[in-house]
Amino acid sequence: MPRCINVTLEYDGTDFKGWQVQSGAPAGEDDTTAVRTVQGVVERALRVVTGRPIRIAGASRTDTGVHALGQAASFLLPDDVALPTADICLALNAHMEKDVATRRAEDAALGFHAQRDATGKVYSYSMICGRERSAVLRRTHWHVRFGLQIEPMRRAAAALIGVHDFTSFATRLAEAQAQRAEEGKAALETVREVRRVELHADPDYPGRIVMRLEGSGFLYQMVRTIAGSLVDVGRGFRPPEWLAEALAAKDRRQAGPTAPAHGLCLERVLY
Amino acid sequence: MPRCINVTLEYDGTDFKGWQVQSGAPAGEDDTTAVRTVQGVVERALRVVTGRPIRIAGASRTDTGVHALGQAASFLLPDDVALPTADICLALNAHMEKDVATRRAEDAALGFHAQRDATGKVYSYSMICGRERSAVLRRTHWHVRFGLQIEPMRRAAAALIGVHDFTSFATRLAEAQAQRAEEGKAALETVREVRRVELHADPDYPGRIVMRLEGSGFLYQMVRTIAGSLVDVGRGFRPPEWLAEALAAKDRRQAGPTAPAHGLCLERVLY
Repeated sequence: MPRCINVTLEYDGTDFKGWQVQSGAPAGEDDTTAVRTVQGVVERALRVVTGRPIRIAGASRTDTGVHALGQAASFLLPDDVALPTADICLALNAHMEKDVATRRAEDAALGFHAQRDATGKVYSYSMICGRERSAVLRRTHWHVRFGLQIEPMRRAAAALIGVHDFTSFATRLAEAQAQRAEEGKAALETVREVRRVELHADPDYPGRIVMRLEGSGFLYQMVRTIAGSLVDVGRGFRPPEWLAEALAAKDRRQAGPTAPAHGLCLERVLY
Repeated sequence: MPRCINVTLEYDGTDFKGWQVQSGAPAGEDDTTAVRTVQGVVERALRVVTGRPIRIAGASRTDTGVHALGQAASFLLPDDVALPTADICLALNAHMEKDVATRRAEDAALGFHAQRDATGKVYSYSMICGRERSAVLRRTHWHVRFGLQIEPMRRAAAALIGVHDFTSFATRLAEAQAQRAEEGKAALETVREVRRVELHADPDYPGRIVMRLEGSGFLYQMVRTIAGSLVDVGRGFRPPEWLAEALAAKDRRQAGPTAPAHGLCLERVLY
């Protein structure tokens, strides 16, 4: 019997062209020097460790520059691969560059799929506000060049909680729907549940604000568009009530800008 | 009248050969491509901005690989340099690479010296313990490859509080004393006051431990040797009482190993 494994991955997205293998090459044979993706690097390490081409399924196809503290990815290990689950992390970590690491490996039921079986995800979006940039946090924080008022941001964010159609916060939705129609697939569901939105001002680092968002799932660039919209509120460019109106409009043009990728981090996938 | 300025600097120490200019070149003319130091990069930027060679005095000569969130450095601006204090940060930041940033610039009294006038410093030492390495935190955290018990570490650390002779935790003390004698200087004072030692286990990142230490000043590699010694306690290699004995011995060989530079961060200089 093959074994189904679910691994928890951490990566610094700075030097990756996102999660997804783009070459169309077979698993483990992706040319990671040309277009370096997280999936490509992990599959290459899996190939070295097991001697087999093994395709992995990530819970989230993170974009170029996006980080992860808790990405999940599942794969099938053929039954003749003698690799104890407890050794998978060390084995993979020995064959991957320092900017990606396996933090946990667990046995899962046959048929488990890291993306389809996820019941929710937690993302963070981190920023530094104020004129002066940061050196230590530059890879993981958006530098917003003006001061932000966090209380209006919190009031605005409360409107997101619950089950809503998040069309206003999705990028390239029309293209995605057109492509699905062409492929004969059902239209993409745009209703999602946001369970938690927190805005935390770091008392130890003046100007540092971290947004944490938990939801059933997220549309393309939804977390980044929420972050960009909340920054518009925090700088006083929009009143807090505006966010609820933007949400109700179901129109991407009514929401704020999409915040840059490098402030985003996939913190955890829930099962 | 020249103006005395004190700036707060942040840097990612990964790609620096420490703080101090090593070439002996005049201020602002250091060849930062050969030996890249933080002082050299800041002085070069100051030279570009003011047109003058200006020597800066750092509060702490941090080693290769050590980071800073709040290094302090003071310098004199000649009276004919028309640069408002409020513009210094942006001006310097525009001429420095992304891994170093000026966070604040303040006027100080003439004669102020960032190192001599410091009344204390706060350092943090960050680590990840457990078999699996981290990707996102790899530049700023020591990966300790085994589990650590934090309570024994806390009990051991309590012995450091107060005014003590910290000879046991200083590296290359004999060489430093011999050099001072040769130069006709008084012997280096080895008594320091440690005001606060905290050990924090991060609830959001399993295995992450941050030590924070405030003191009147620190001997060479003292914070790193304290961190290495506390890790020996946390892994059960030494009992908590051992640290007090090692301190009392005034002998470097009685303390634990010096922890690697990249876990160390100068958080703040107190005045």
